Amino acid sequence: MGLLDLEAAARERWLRRRADPDPQESDASSRSNKYGPHLLTTVFDPAAFVEEAVKKLEQELPGKAVVACSGGVDSSVCAVLAAKAVGDRALSVFVDHGLIRKGERALVERMMSSFHANFKVVDASDEFLAALEGVIEPEQKRKIIGGKFIDVFEREAKPFGATHLVQGTIAPDWIESGGGLRDTIKSHHNVGGLPERMSLKLAEPLRDLYKDEVRKVARFLKLENAERQPFPGPGLAVRCLGELTEEKIEIVRESCAIVEEEIEAAAAAGKCELPWQYFAALLNVRSVGVQGDTRSYGWTVVVRSVGALDGMTAHWSKIPPEVLERISTRITNTMGKRVNRVVYDVTNKPPGTIEWE
Amino acid sequence: MGLLDLEAAARERWLRRRADPDPQESDASSRSNKYGPHLLTTVFDPAAFVEEAVKKLEQELPGKAVVACSGGVDSSVCAVLAAKAVGDRALSVFVDHGLIRKGERALVERMMSSFHANFKVVDASDEFLAALEGVIEPEQKRKIIGGKFIDVFEREAKPFGATHLVQGTIAPDWIESGGGLRDTIKSHHNVGGLPERMSLKLAEPLRDLYKDEVRKVARFLKLENAERQPFPGPGLAVRCLGELTEEKIEIVRESCAIVEEEIEAAAAAGKCELPWQYFAALLNVRSVGVQGDTRSYGWTVVVRSVGALDGMTAHWSKIPPEVLERISTRITNTMGKRVNRVVYDVTNKPPGTIEWE
Repeated sequence: MGLLDLEAAARERWLRRRADPDPQESDASSRSNKYGPHLLTTVFDPAAFVEEAVKKLEQELPGKAVVACSGGVDSSVCAVLAAKAVGDRALSVFVDHGLIRKGERALVERMMSSFHANFKVVDASDEFLAALEGVIEPEQKRKIIGGKFIDVFEREAKPFGATHLVQGTIAPDWIESGGGLRDTIKSHHNVGGLPERMSLKLAEPLRDLYKDEVRKVARFLKLENAERQPFPGPGLAVRCLGELTEEKIEIVRESCAIVEEEIEAAAAAGKCELPWQYFAALLNVRSVGVQGDTRSYGWTVVVRSVGALDGMTAHWSKIPPEVLERISTRITNTMGKRVNRVVYDVTNKPPGTIEWE
Repeated sequence: MGLLDLEAAARERWLRRRADPDPQESDASSRSNKYGPHLLTTVFDPAAFVEEAVKKLEQELPGKAVVACSGGVDSSVCAVLAAKAVGDRALSVFVDHGLIRKGERALVERMMSSFHANFKVVDASDEFLAALEGVIEPEQKRKIIGGKFIDVFEREAKPFGATHLVQGTIAPDWIESGGGLRDTIKSHHNVGGLPERMSLKLAEPLRDLYKDEVRKVARFLKLENAERQPFPGPGLAVRCLGELTEEKIEIVRESCAIVEEEIEAAAAAGKCELPWQYFAALLNVRSVGVQGDTRSYGWTVVVRSVGALDGMTAHWSKIPPEVLERISTRITNTMGKRVNRVVYDVTNKPPGTIEWE
């Protein structure tokens, strides 16, 4: 099956899923068996997928490989598949680019050591932030970050002797990056940021999967982060609209942590379902406020929370008002005069996207 | 009673109202009678206020006067008080500055003609928009617009032979403009925009009132717009963040009309209470979206709706999600690719203000 066939097949599946969002409850005959062995049965079979993917990786990786590992579910599945396929010939690399979530590095270290995977953390935050100085345009941010990622992986590949890079691209990534017939909506760092000059050969074992299928694989593999919400490859860079500054990154990191805490607590208390994705972004806009009886002119934080099946379409979550109230108050109280306005995104995808940049 | 006494008294009342927001349900003895005849009784008496205000205006206006008439409830009450006090010696002037609400001019003309008030419309939109070209800073916008208003009123005053300007400043306007001891939060056009050079003498019959009291007077006078929501003096200029363009003004005018229609329909259907104020503003920020399978990079509209007693403090309204959904969809559908994102403001005042600029 050629690349174009695969793309056409994936797009067809996507369109069918939009019309019939829950395949488990659908008529079995509507899902044909022409899209590969892991779709032979009516319900996606993670065991069959893992078996086939490991076999493919064994063939694709004759020597050593680095695995791009962000701590998200896609790349963690990749790291495990690569370790299953080639053992210590795979080195998983976590890049701390200064734009990661609060507490992320510790979490990834804990998780990877529980796999006994060959694993390394690279601190490249100065390098990334320097390259992003003064950059405003979202596509440029994504491309710079994608390029820097490749720089780091190539640098790590050399002493390790790797010839390949394994990364967790999934179907919506390349569909939205213009890999198919569509215009470029966003350059996903897994895809759009790849420079022509890259010397490493690419392996993308999840290229044909959607997010819910990746989660099924992660559950099958008993990964700790199987239910973890998606996080963009370019990190907090695309959640700080406009030019990045350390102050803005700090605001958005703290705000994201508050949103996660409050929404997870509300879901645990049965006040709402846990959304597909929920975070904060910092809008590049100031508004007039009043704090302590004096004028303030602070930044605006947007709270985004969506329900989705695969991220290709999404609807904004109906978070209970008292939860939004707590989030809003905690953010403005924590940030003092730097933030005096909190808004909640009530846009579906389309016409919006889940992230803002 | 001097000006400073009045200010101190108004501020004291304001603080008491914050602690005890519904005076009608409060202990009568907690509202003393030292602040003027209209507060002699425990509940504000609009009839007594009108009688006193007309008497005062007769004294203050020995000759002719122009009345700044925006179509809002404050200025309409002023127009009627002035007409009662000095008849045709008062000329109410409505300035169309190109930043008014959809259908506003027709509404004001209809309303004023029903009063048989001496009334005139001045179209000054070119003049205002030219003066605002390239201006970004909110305070500068407010001051330019306030200054232009005075230009127009002085120009109209000359041929009419007026020596005075009557305007509908109310207590929160000058408290927030720094008329008292507080810092300037915002220059209200009634106050902060007044140039030193103004040749007209000022009469402000509502200076000591809060909004709910003005509404009581309006109901007593049987004004059609007694329940109409407040609208800022600088109009849509402070609802288009950043530099003004005709496209942005058009977007915000249409969006405001959609918000008003949907929220008023929801309130009429018993889905929510009618808020104190509800409108849209255009944020000076673009985000990535997907429309018709291609990338869009459109503007963001914020929906603002608050409950309040007097505008000095406010809480964001708990609009039902299905109403927000309708508003969001109508705005993005109507605007096409120009707007791909709608957010809902979940900030109380403080720390935000009701308007964004």
